[in-house]
Amino acid sequence: MTALTTAWVEDLTTALGPDAVRTDPDVTVAYARDQALMAEAGTPAAVVFPGSTGDVVAVMELASRHGVPVVPRGAGSGLVGASNAVDGGITMVLTRMDAVLEVSAADRLAVVQPGVVNKALRDAVAAAGLFYPPDPASYDWCTLGGNLAMNSGGLCCVKYGVTTDYVLGLEVVLADGRVLRTGRRTVKGVAGYDLTRLFVGSEGTLGVITEATLALRPAPATDPVTLVATFATSAQTGQVVESVVTSGVVPSMLEVMDRTCIRAVDDMLRADLDRDAQALLVARSDAGGAAALAEIAELTRLCEAAGADLVHSTADPAEGDLLLAARRAALPALERLGSVLLDDVAVPRSRVATFIDGCDAISSQYGLVIGVMGHAGDGNMHPTIVFDATDADQRARALEAFDAILELGLSLGGTITGEHGVGTLKADWLAREIGPVSADVHRSIKDALDPAGILNPGKVVRRRG
Amino acid sequence: MTALTTAWVEDLTTALGPDAVRTDPDVTVAYARDQALMAEAGTPAAVVFPGSTGDVVAVMELASRHGVPVVPRGAGSGLVGASNAVDGGITMVLTRMDAVLEVSAADRLAVVQPGVVNKALRDAVAAAGLFYPPDPASYDWCTLGGNLAMNSGGLCCVKYGVTTDYVLGLEVVLADGRVLRTGRRTVKGVAGYDLTRLFVGSEGTLGVITEATLALRPAPATDPVTLVATFATSAQTGQVVESVVTSGVVPSMLEVMDRTCIRAVDDMLRADLDRDAQALLVARSDAGGAAALAEIAELTRLCEAAGADLVHSTADPAEGDLLLAARRAALPALERLGSVLLDDVAVPRSRVATFIDGCDAISSQYGLVIGVMGHAGDGNMHPTIVFDATDADQRARALEAFDAILELGLSLGGTITGEHGVGTLKADWLAREIGPVSADVHRSIKDALDPAGILNPGKVVRRRG
Repeated sequence: MTALTTAWVEDLTTALGPDAVRTDPDVTVAYARDQALMAEAGTPAAVVFPGSTGDVVAVMELASRHGVPVVPRGAGSGLVGASNAVDGGITMVLTRMDAVLEVSAADRLAVVQPGVVNKALRDAVAAAGLFYPPDPASYDWCTLGGNLAMNSGGLCCVKYGVTTDYVLGLEVVLADGRVLRTGRRTVKGVAGYDLTRLFVGSEGTLGVITEATLALRPAPATDPVTLVATFATSAQTGQVVESVVTSGVVPSMLEVMDRTCIRAVDDMLRADLDRDAQALLVARSDAGGAAALAEIAELTRLCEAAGADLVHSTADPAEGDLLLAARRAALPALERLGSVLLDDVAVPRSRVATFIDGCDAISSQYGLVIGVMGHAGDGNMHPTIVFDATDADQRARALEAFDAILELGLSLGGTITGEHGVGTLKADWLAREIGPVSADVHRSIKDALDPAGILNPGKVVRRRG
Repeated sequence: MTALTTAWVEDLTTALGPDAVRTDPDVTVAYARDQALMAEAGTPAAVVFPGSTGDVVAVMELASRHGVPVVPRGAGSGLVGASNAVDGGITMVLTRMDAVLEVSAADRLAVVQPGVVNKALRDAVAAAGLFYPPDPASYDWCTLGGNLAMNSGGLCCVKYGVTTDYVLGLEVVLADGRVLRTGRRTVKGVAGYDLTRLFVGSEGTLGVITEATLALRPAPATDPVTLVATFATSAQTGQVVESVVTSGVVPSMLEVMDRTCIRAVDDMLRADLDRDAQALLVARSDAGGAAALAEIAELTRLCEAAGADLVHSTADPAEGDLLLAARRAALPALERLGSVLLDDVAVPRSRVATFIDGCDAISSQYGLVIGVMGHAGDGNMHPTIVFDATDADQRARALEAFDAILELGLSLGGTITGEHGVGTLKADWLAREIGPVSADVHRSIKDALDPAGILNPGKVVRRRG
């Protein structure tokens, strides 16, 4: 540690107390990166654990004064390196700020600190007959602060949207330590610019979210009806997705996995899946009672019309959860085959089949296993490249296949990220998707809010050249 | 016209053609202001009617070069002076850019130019079995560009949200004439900052929206069920609103009007309303068939539990439309009594009754008729002050009552504007609601995107002192 570093670490310790500031290498290494394989990461000089907004203010004031970069993070469940550490900087871990400050049934909202685990909020509001929909796969350990920073999605999005659709207001500590409040407690409000949604999804590059007011929904029916269908071609699968869109039925879930995933899951779970199917769809309705049965009946008709080999549905929640478990097992099943590089491309719903076929072609071209799973109902696909991370050639081919998938997504009118974010992993691709004018507008906003560039540098927006 | 003005008007005419540039006083006066009584307005030196994005670029390049302010506008249905002209500036009327460029049933979206009238899009997508929910009262003449600039709401919001909830992407001409594309065609996407929602609701102060990609929904059921209920106290009315929220029923409409409105409407329509009721609720379900009947049955139960004097519901769409017509007539009925100053405050849903009672007290205090109507289901209320605009004392009292209503809204945890916007009318109040840090962040963003301050100056954000 340099003398300069020692000076500001001492200041930090004075401000937050010794328990909240750690510089030992086992700690700094443990907080250096998220779940993204192959994303750049440095090593923080210090890891801080603020316990209050006041602590966050103290950190940002001090970091501003000393020109030290600050990387905010939660549980580290991210998938693009957005909370990866910067060498010599401060990594600010917000997991100690984990209070659900309020649940109001009368105004159907909750007020939370950023360290609350997604599932903890879901459980807290369920007790009041309410529902917080965004459900990233890591919902039982990821934090809401991370969900907000990344604008996380999940399986619910086809019916219920993403994190930003549930954010009424925020408390944000700015780069210079000032505390900004955005938004409101009311359902509607148009007083000034939509700063709330500017901060949501900005990946910690514009401010540190220290509190959020979240809209809730009435709890859905507790008797979901679940459908599974298999298809001999991805074209048939795509036809179902498209016909669901045009039918007007909005399932609460419409998930897909391809043959590679089906076989990997069947190998792991011995679930007696159709190993020759090209694709498997899992759909669910939470409309309740007769409405749910009617929705699933319509989905059954659409699957059959597309030529499904098998369509099965069940109103038994336990059996439904088993069907869903196969889909949820897709990623762990692929992880048994090697290292995985998980991509995240959203395409227009009419292009889902073309995208799956394109990923197959990329798999052949680069000689790598690529399993495609995803949220078919909203076009958000997760092609997952399996490779041997100890083999330099395979690593290189995996990265090339990763890029080819992004290229394919853009060529179909899609986006390089539907829900995982940009982080360090896709910062160059972001510039390509949004073009020079938008990149310049991004930089202007970043410079306006964080002129010294200390907030999560290198993520999302690259500095002006 | 000064020589300087003459120079840039000549440049404009060269760029856009003489048909698209008007300086005659009858035209400049006609485009000087929107529908907001008592909002500041200047007189434009020129009114331009661009026919394409290229025309808008030409106007902005020229305005930047000459340092001329530009006020974008649509049909002029606004209610806060947000499109009111600036003396000596350019008013840019976007009504000629009125093409629906695409309606895609497969991807459930539409691409539109800003001059498309809200109802024209509704009709165009209805033909494809689709639905564009945002429905401001002026939906049959307001333009989508204005809806986007103001983030308009309407009667649908309790179930379907507001304009920003339907915007996937934008084309925006920046102050310096560069063309920015934001967002995407996909359902989900988190590539970069949410610039789309930064521009939506920015009231023309950050850029000129020249194209929008809008998400659509499946058309709702065509057999709405409608309920009307009257109450002896506003407390009972508030109890219904609160119990609807906690019940989990989400009606497609839940509107309120108070005794002042009831009597004014009854005088105008001879509708045999209960003139002694303190408040009247109109609710609707568009869930279709048995689901709609079940929702209205539950709302009936909640109204009766609150002690309603009368509850009546109908599955006959024509009769339902008659019930709704009474609510829609509230504003025109008040306008028969004098000039009106229409306010727009959103409060937490649990505070609706307190807000109505508070408006009654303000009415007594200032000796003016104030009718309260609004979107009870989302807490967005429109207290409407009736006064004699030719009487200086009444004008002064009307403005004081207007401020007292905003003060009341803020004191109840509400916002000074739920859906009408800030414009010139509430720019000072905005500073008060959001506080100095947020005001400074607003100005930083404004300065980053429009450093010369030529886009709709004086609206929303005041210049640094």
